[in-house]
Amino acid sequence: MKYDVIVIGGGPAGVISAVTARKYYGDKKILLIKSIEKGVIPCGIPYMFTTLEKPEDNAMGNMPLEKNNIELKVDEVIGIDREKKQVQTKGKEILEYEKLILAMGSDPIMPPIDGIEKKGVYPIQKEMDYLKNLKTEIQKARDIVIIGGGFIGIEFADELSLLKDTNITVVEFLPEILDNSFDNEFSKLAREKIDEKGINIVTGKKVVKFNGGEKVESVSLSDNTEIPCQVVILGIGASPNAGIASKAGLDIGKSRGILVDEYLRTYSDTDIFAVGDCAEKKDFFTRKRIPIMLASTACAEARIAGANLFELKVVRENKGTIATYSTKIDSLTLGSAGLTEQTAIKEGFEIVVGNAEGVDKHPGVLPDANKVKVKLIFSKQSGILLGGQVAGGDSAGEIVNIIGLALQKTTTLTELETLQIATHPKLTAAPTMYPLITAAQDALSKYGK
Amino acid sequence: MKYDVIVIGGGPAGVISAVTARKYYGDKKILLIKSIEKGVIPCGIPYMFTTLEKPEDNAMGNMPLEKNNIELKVDEVIGIDREKKQVQTKGKEILEYEKLILAMGSDPIMPPIDGIEKKGVYPIQKEMDYLKNLKTEIQKARDIVIIGGGFIGIEFADELSLLKDTNITVVEFLPEILDNSFDNEFSKLAREKIDEKGINIVTGKKVVKFNGGEKVESVSLSDNTEIPCQVVILGIGASPNAGIASKAGLDIGKSRGILVDEYLRTYSDTDIFAVGDCAEKKDFFTRKRIPIMLASTACAEARIAGANLFELKVVRENKGTIATYSTKIDSLTLGSAGLTEQTAIKEGFEIVVGNAEGVDKHPGVLPDANKVKVKLIFSKQSGILLGGQVAGGDSAGEIVNIIGLALQKTTTLTELETLQIATHPKLTAAPTMYPLITAAQDALSKYGK
Repeated sequence: MKYDVIVIGGGPAGVISAVTARKYYGDKKILLIKSIEKGVIPCGIPYMFTTLEKPEDNAMGNMPLEKNNIELKVDEVIGIDREKKQVQTKGKEILEYEKLILAMGSDPIMPPIDGIEKKGVYPIQKEMDYLKNLKTEIQKARDIVIIGGGFIGIEFADELSLLKDTNITVVEFLPEILDNSFDNEFSKLAREKIDEKGINIVTGKKVVKFNGGEKVESVSLSDNTEIPCQVVILGIGASPNAGIASKAGLDIGKSRGILVDEYLRTYSDTDIFAVGDCAEKKDFFTRKRIPIMLASTACAEARIAGANLFELKVVRENKGTIATYSTKIDSLTLGSAGLTEQTAIKEGFEIVVGNAEGVDKHPGVLPDANKVKVKLIFSKQSGILLGGQVAGGDSAGEIVNIIGLALQKTTTLTELETLQIATHPKLTAAPTMYPLITAAQDALSKYGK
Repeated sequence: MKYDVIVIGGGPAGVISAVTARKYYGDKKILLIKSIEKGVIPCGIPYMFTTLEKPEDNAMGNMPLEKNNIELKVDEVIGIDREKKQVQTKGKEILEYEKLILAMGSDPIMPPIDGIEKKGVYPIQKEMDYLKNLKTEIQKARDIVIIGGGFIGIEFADELSLLKDTNITVVEFLPEILDNSFDNEFSKLAREKIDEKGINIVTGKKVVKFNGGEKVESVSLSDNTEIPCQVVILGIGASPNAGIASKAGLDIGKSRGILVDEYLRTYSDTDIFAVGDCAEKKDFFTRKRIPIMLASTACAEARIAGANLFELKVVRENKGTIATYSTKIDSLTLGSAGLTEQTAIKEGFEIVVGNAEGVDKHPGVLPDANKVKVKLIFSKQSGILLGGQVAGGDSAGEIVNIIGLALQKTTTLTELETLQIATHPKLTAAPTMYPLITAAQDALSKYGK
């Protein structure tokens, strides 16, 4: 069978690639092949255990594909023949493509720790039945250990702390949780919330062994302490799923992701594109590769790839990836975009930092007002925004997108300081004290010194 | 007495001008003169009647002035002698300035309607004691009529509808409420909410007479209907308070605001600046004067004026004002930035419009998810964003600021379509369906047609 476009992967990167391709190329014959029949929305996984009424509420449906006249095949691609422009599947099909989009995602990292193969140790797989089973096991467990204090680990911890009579422990080998995305004063806010909720946090220690018989019964840490557990969740990151790309001779980067150009074409073969977790990413400012694996990043890439399959429709400058995230821990929202202060310094930028604290309503005595804390990092000489972090109520989830847009549009300190904004008592900080503006002013005040 | 800087006006424009001046010019002697001793935060006024526990919670304090070593005088300026560089006050003081900032704000418009002088008819004054008295009268009233279905009128209506056993009627002479800032499909959402709350709305009719004895007892409308009322609130806009500027020979624009350049210097005298409601504004895109009177706009101007008093520190391009607002009606948030579709067409722009609907959490079945509706208006040939509107939950209050920044940074359809964003299940729409992106895509899909 011959297709104009074949997309491998049914996650957000694959689906959005296919849907975008359809938008731009109405007549093309498009096929999406996915290996997981019943997938889930990746970012919603932590909330399948208590917040959502039933795990099925987080199902990744096929509607966008059906609506856009995209053929769907549940099968696993096991090889790519670039010369013949064919893919072979486990189901023994040979399918021809004119353009191929690789959106195979990533696989959870399984560190070589003694006993990791025991029952009860769960990497996070994006598969409905697997996660439904995990939910059952979680409900039976009295003690749960989460390994990894990044976003996923912390979101799982927050969610599982809603279960009564379950002890939750997060083990993070870095000195702070959320250490890659936030400076310490922000990760401390997260830690305070986690502490309040009665979740145990162990930082600066590694898991060295999973103990028990067939089933895990406890984990041993690097300081010889032992934590009992019936369920272990591994939230320590993922590795690009680039095996078939590598086998097909496509260049793979040092992050193990597939090397791509600004249009998401693979370096080795311009008829093959790679998007999302399986593709290597470059940082917007440092130009170095960064291990960002986010559905939102994947979607942005997929939109560019889908548009540029047969013609370069969307001119893509060498912009790179802004690491931009948000998370919610209990009532606390944290967001980060671009470089943190610690990363900026490590990467050799001369910077000036602005901080602001305020409230997200005005006057601050209004019901449900939350504290808001903003930090902005600027390149000292050029005055260009390099990154920002925000902690606050729910609206911080969009404030971080203001910072993200400012980064993508190369915005200066002065532009932020004189920004025109919409403010409202029940929705935002006061116009006199809007935290993005006051943080820019704080940075400015440091220039004289 | 001689000052380096005199600021006339104690509202947000005045205070932020003075505070910014202090930031940039540490040694200067700065005086702020205000005629109202106990002012209020303007945007908080509607919420002084039920939401805030006590009216004093919305007081405009003097702390920012004290902290920044700015002298304060409660007095009324009655004249400016530009030759001698002096101002005269009602309290018979003569004060010399080197730089003068006019931040006198605006006065409520009092239309020449028969009976408007009656007791019980309240224009909105930004004065604590006046508003405390209004609160008492409101609490005693059984029937309240609000004239004007713009932001202020609608916010008052929403707030006063929380009072039990009070009939609220809003009278708007335009065919829709919020008609200046939103296209119909958005103002209709507002109207639905208002209807749900049991507030009466009368549109397309004018008030022609206030009836009663010394005190108002009813209003007569242009269709001869009569609405009983013990309190009338006038929310029909304000007029620049530029009397002393005009008397001093400063040029006044057709909007009756003081004419200023990009640095907020008056056209007539570069030692005199004018900011906020008393200064004329130009629209960002049409370059025409627009009657925008918002604290947030005033603050943005004040920051530019304060910085540029003695030296031009902040280079200011001829950007003009983005009309950007947000409001909340019950649980519905509405925001607008830039041109609406109707305004863009009226002004002669060739446009393409993109619409999107989604939810502000993902999956949409998460508790407290709100529908989000976004509309973006682009210049057809250049692809540049001209305006946007959003309706949704609380986070729409910051989504409109993403649109506002995109306008100020001249952002194209393609840039928005491939925007990198932070998304989170509990905080935003899904990365696959983020409404600013899907609205841009919708606009794009219309190009072929």
